[in-house]
Amino acid sequence: MKSTFGKNLTVSLFGESHGAAIGVTLDGLAPGIPLDLDGIRHQLDLRRPAGAISTARREADAFQIVSGFFDGHTTGTPLTLLIPNQDTKSRDYAATRFLPRPGHADYTAFAKYEGYQDYRGGGHFSGRITAPLVAAGAIAMQILRRHGVTLGTHIAQCAGIGDRDFAAERLDEDLECLSQRTFPVLDEERGAAMREAIEAAHAQGDSVGGILETCVLGMPAGVGEPYFHSVESVLSHLLFSVPAVKGVEFGLGFGFAGLRGSQANDPFRYDGDRVVTTTNHNGGVNGGITNGMPILFRVCVKPTSSIYLQQDTVDLARGENATLLIKGRHDPAIVHRARVVVDSVTALGLTDLMIERAGTAWMRGE
Amino acid sequence: MKSTFGKNLTVSLFGESHGAAIGVTLDGLAPGIPLDLDGIRHQLDLRRPAGAISTARREADAFQIVSGFFDGHTTGTPLTLLIPNQDTKSRDYAATRFLPRPGHADYTAFAKYEGYQDYRGGGHFSGRITAPLVAAGAIAMQILRRHGVTLGTHIAQCAGIGDRDFAAERLDEDLECLSQRTFPVLDEERGAAMREAIEAAHAQGDSVGGILETCVLGMPAGVGEPYFHSVESVLSHLLFSVPAVKGVEFGLGFGFAGLRGSQANDPFRYDGDRVVTTTNHNGGVNGGITNGMPILFRVCVKPTSSIYLQQDTVDLARGENATLLIKGRHDPAIVHRARVVVDSVTALGLTDLMIERAGTAWMRGE
Amino acid sequence: MKSTFGKNLTVSLFGESHGAAIGVTLDGLAPGIPLDLDGIRHQLDLRRPAGAISTARREADAFQIVSGFFDGHTTGTPLTLLIPNQDTKSRDYAATRFLPRPGHADYTAFAKYEGYQDYRGGGHFSGRITAPLVAAGAIAMQILRRHGVTLGTHIAQCAGIGDRDFAAERLDEDLECLSQRTFPVLDEERGAAMREAIEAAHAQGDSVGGILETCVLGMPAGVGEPYFHSVESVLSHLLFSVPAVKGVEFGLGFGFAGLRGSQANDPFRYDGDRVVTTTNHNGGVNGGITNGMPILFRVCVKPTSSIYLQQDTVDLARGENATLLIKGRHDPAIVHRARVVVDSVTALGLTDLMIERAGTAWMRGE
Amino acid sequence: MKSTFGKNLTVSLFGESHGAAIGVTLDGLAPGIPLDLDGIRHQLDLRRPAGAISTARREADAFQIVSGFFDGHTTGTPLTLLIPNQDTKSRDYAATRFLPRPGHADYTAFAKYEGYQDYRGGGHFSGRITAPLVAAGAIAMQILRRHGVTLGTHIAQCAGIGDRDFAAERLDEDLECLSQRTFPVLDEERGAAMREAIEAAHAQGDSVGGILETCVLGMPAGVGEPYFHSVESVLSHLLFSVPAVKGVEFGLGFGFAGLRGSQANDPFRYDGDRVVTTTNHNGGVNGGITNGMPILFRVCVKPTSSIYLQQDTVDLARGENATLLIKGRHDPAIVHRARVVVDSVTALGLTDLMIERAGTAWMRGE
Repeated sequence: MKSTFGKNLTVSLFGESHGAAIGVTLDGLAPGIPLDLDGIRHQLDLRRPAGAISTARREADAFQIVSGFFDGHTTGTPLTLLIPNQDTKSRDYAATRFLPRPGHADYTAFAKYEGYQDYRGGGHFSGRITAPLVAAGAIAMQILRRHGVTLGTHIAQCAGIGDRDFAAERLDEDLECLSQRTFPVLDEERGAAMREAIEAAHAQGDSVGGILETCVLGMPAGVGEPYFHSVESVLSHLLFSVPAVKGVEFGLGFGFAGLRGSQANDPFRYDGDRVVTTTNHNGGVNGGITNGMPILFRVCVKPTSSIYLQQDTVDLARGENATLLIKGRHDPAIVHRARVVVDSVTALGLTDLMIERAGTAWMRGE
Repeated sequence: MKSTFGKNLTVSLFGESHGAAIGVTLDGLAPGIPLDLDGIRHQLDLRRPAGAISTARREADAFQIVSGFFDGHTTGTPLTLLIPNQDTKSRDYAATRFLPRPGHADYTAFAKYEGYQDYRGGGHFSGRITAPLVAAGAIAMQILRRHGVTLGTHIAQCAGIGDRDFAAERLDEDLECLSQRTFPVLDEERGAAMREAIEAAHAQGDSVGGILETCVLGMPAGVGEPYFHSVESVLSHLLFSVPAVKGVEFGLGFGFAGLRGSQANDPFRYDGDRVVTTTNHNGGVNGGITNGMPILFRVCVKPTSSIYLQQDTVDLARGENATLLIKGRHDPAIVHRARVVVDSVTALGLTDLMIERAGTAWMRGE
Repeated sequence: MKSTFGKNLTVSLFGESHGAAIGVTLDGLAPGIPLDLDGIRHQLDLRRPAGAISTARREADAFQIVSGFFDGHTTGTPLTLLIPNQDTKSRDYAATRFLPRPGHADYTAFAKYEGYQDYRGGGHFSGRITAPLVAAGAIAMQILRRHGVTLGTHIAQCAGIGDRDFAAERLDEDLECLSQRTFPVLDEERGAAMREAIEAAHAQGDSVGGILETCVLGMPAGVGEPYFHSVESVLSHLLFSVPAVKGVEFGLGFGFAGLRGSQANDPFRYDGDRVVTTTNHNGGVNGGITNGMPILFRVCVKPTSSIYLQQDTVDLARGENATLLIKGRHDPAIVHRARVVVDSVTALGLTDLMIERAGTAWMRGE
Repeated sequence: MKSTFGKNLTVSLFGESHGAAIGVTLDGLAPGIPLDLDGIRHQLDLRRPAGAISTARREADAFQIVSGFFDGHTTGTPLTLLIPNQDTKSRDYAATRFLPRPGHADYTAFAKYEGYQDYRGGGHFSGRITAPLVAAGAIAMQILRRHGVTLGTHIAQCAGIGDRDFAAERLDEDLECLSQRTFPVLDEERGAAMREAIEAAHAQGDSVGGILETCVLGMPAGVGEPYFHSVESVLSHLLFSVPAVKGVEFGLGFGFAGLRGSQANDPFRYDGDRVVTTTNHNGGVNGGITNGMPILFRVCVKPTSSIYLQQDTVDLARGENATLLIKGRHDPAIVHRARVVVDSVTALGLTDLMIERAGTAWMRGE
């Protein structure tokens, strides 16, 4: 199933950038979960483009839940949520239909769908398809929060500029603060520098990349489904579905390569009744299963491939080399918008794993 | 399904380190695929411990195919392969049953399985369980090779020492050379230095980590199943199932963070009839779908968590802090042995995606 | 996944009888399949209520395809089709919300969804939810027809009145004729008698049941996926999802019980190059795999449970026995409307099995 | 996944009639379930052939659990159980390799596996493959029994002779009695007549069929996963995987066809706190969900297709018509042996649905 993920709570995406609507179906929700629709709107707002550092396409992202929701609660049947596409300019794409943008999915979609893909605005590969994914993730985040599980992501690095690290002693404060920021950094001064760098790249018709760092608090120990469905496996599977993600690492990640075991291992000790580790190099996961410590991971988001500089490409209709200068409306950076998508898929993956451990009724917070 | 992966060709693992046997079932194989049993043995040999840099446990890994194989060919029914456990010393583990090794799955398995896990030798979390996975991967590699798809992995870095890079002009030679080496480096001199560093760590009761780099040649363009089952999603899912893997990156991976789009994008051009890219920063994958260029990715393997130095831990039976000095037989490094496991899961994942595109009969090479 | 079926071509249903819309997502369609929208409309028309033998609720069933369809062809991405609900009278249901109709899903839905189900008009258990299923089935039928596979269903029995049998020598004519009839019988005289019997039951506030018999022509030999996914397993799974179905039998079905092997076996012989059987007691399936003969099966549809006679039930809100006299608009028989649903799920199941055998590209008719 | 079934508790079968071993993997078992190995042996004994009414092939069916079981309890990792094949006479099959038995899977397996199937003794299509399925079912039955769910099956009809019906007032006694009988009838006198009829058919080189009727007690209301995974869907899917099953009906089944709704509906009433129905025509299932009443269904088992009379067939090697007179050892009836297979798949299906409702921990009986 190409556009479905999850075993217990399955998320299915559908839609194209310039079609009538995009949407998502969540199947496996317990009946009786109260949903906070404003909370869903808030997450969608965090994803929406804003200001000079974003695309000029502005969609209201007004959503409609057409099934599985009644009298303020989930019914237990599939919940389908639709978001209409309204601000589309399809003509921008006709001229370059056969000129694939370097770095983008244009050529590979052409190869896979043999020319039948909806090419307008990137079709199914548009970042726009992440909007319903964010709505689904917002529901998962509400379920997790009911059990004291919270999560958040900051831009650890953008255009070469680093944010401050998560503060180990007040992670909950850091997460709370990030949940309100449309440009999610912990140090706003460095955030301002990042925005300037994005605008500078934009002014030159170029784009920038970055690194997102995510923290999850409150997950109990013992969650994860080896052999093949470790916490890292499930989360990385979802994270690499997010457009532009090219790297995922947990805890110290690639930093483990140069260490010895004596430096890398996280010693255990009791904190009251609870087993904790004195360090958290493994990012809250041992052997693919949560150990009760904060889950920490980092995701690399490559620079937006749609840039306004002339690039070499091929003309797939004529079968010859060509150059490309694109029109259309594109983001000079997506790392800040990708943040809420990362939060969303993380929440969906962890909810699915929690249901495996605790059962369907767990979702209602009982 | 916890211990099964794959949609078209499913791989299911079973077994514990000190049980009667470990094994694997491959379901979805086409009928009529000739299997080279010596080729499977060769791959198992590459995984087996050897010399001073490996555990003293020596298993023959003699395998038996009990179903799905008849007259030298697959039958099309499930193929189950068994490997008996023979060189087990279970007594080594009884004394430390309730003292989880830092960095290992001992504590999280205890939390997940509530004390019922087979703790001997790491049970289901032992690296030994990768032996049947390698046998399954060997079959997938034989299927891919029949279509001109080859792959190989070298130790890009170990104990702080780097191998030379893949040579872009003769990748096939590099892969051929790696397929014969038990310590898989491209530059044997640097390999010797790595082995010395491993032995030095071993002499101090410690362990080291490293980075593996994989290259896949010959994959056609158009393979991968967005939205959720991109090439990166499927491969990372499998790679993070391999014990000790903590990071996965494709192409430039985390190196994309500091680049601009104009530097990161891979321009297209025609090479005869074939569309190629002049650079391969994206590691052969755009938008989650192969673009026909070599697939390149890197995997971080953390240092073995079982070390012979005293470590702080907890006593789960007594509910108090404790110290641990382990016995048992363990590897001071597993990066060289993990190589063939990485090749195996890569082959399994790509075969599954190829079947999705080309159908079951493709497996027979028609 | 509760509301999804299929491995290669997955069908997912969503919606409630009185919600904003009901719909279906088909995932796994090859790109480039031309769709005949009038053909989909025709199938929906066959399902729509008509005349005195049907419910008074009249929905236009105007559908909208919001994704996966572009320039007259499938794109290869998920195809989502929506049907709005328009002629709803929700007030009819409030008074009897806690009085479950005997024979209906009201009580079991209450038990399963713990009171959170959308009770209006039967919610997710309304026969209305079969409308998008029929639309999906119409697409599968178009794919099969492209390969010479046709299918049809007649009312073998209704209210104790039997239709004539399929004519073995001109099955294709029988199927063609059924595809145009809204009351699907082979002998129109007997059909008229059935309609009279339905109206008679209706006049008494009662309802009737019946038996549907389906024939599939043109399936090649060798399709089906034992051990667990035999043709009979896959089709019965889908058929028992259709509301009111209580029995499924293939070939002679329960008639096999009294026979000896020598009477039941279908001898093989060559018809030119092709292996055929001289009888077809097994209904085209041996060992769960097609043998190339027509697939034949029968399905029992119980009488509509919503009747206008007083019935004993319970009051779930008060916890006491009660009597029920329902309002609302209901069908005195659904066997004729269930026909097209049976055709639809049959087409979906067989298409999924054919893709398993012949690959995704098969769908395009190549 | 061809040889796997189940979402939460997955059962995977492997093996051929004359291979080294046949086996099963159960994945998804909770840790800490005590297993009664004698109970598994008892179920295997009920399936084993005995006396003149069964095949002369006698296998000890000594099983070995090689993983997932430790210190008398499940570990929570995949449980694999092996049964060696010992009493094989492969030579009986070489002469008729290309002469498919009418009614059997020989021809369809040839078509599907393109001649690569292990043809000896029916290979993967042998009734022998049901032995590991029975072992898996025995484990599921132990889990269900821990929650007060019991089940049993009798031969309702064999060779035209009927057993007495289940006694509605003492269903538990009937089930208890059946659990000890190798020829499972409620009325032993009629059972003796059935055995005589089987022997009479056997003496003439022929075989007989029959009908099995199953009763499940103790299932709570609210279990089942519409839209597509109704109780009837899941059970019929599994039942039609059992060799020779050609019909499945729930409650009155095909008997519903001639009734009116007022006769077919089961009125509700309170029995203390519990909602019950005064009749049980629907066999304990409404709208695909259990209603708390006994689940009742019937399964038609066709006569064994392997008979010792000359039959018309084709020679697939020579491409011409032929006659067949088989050797080998075959059962003149399998309805009595199929009984325990029906119980097994029923237990597996219901356990899977119960886990969906009640969570993994439910399996331990907590």
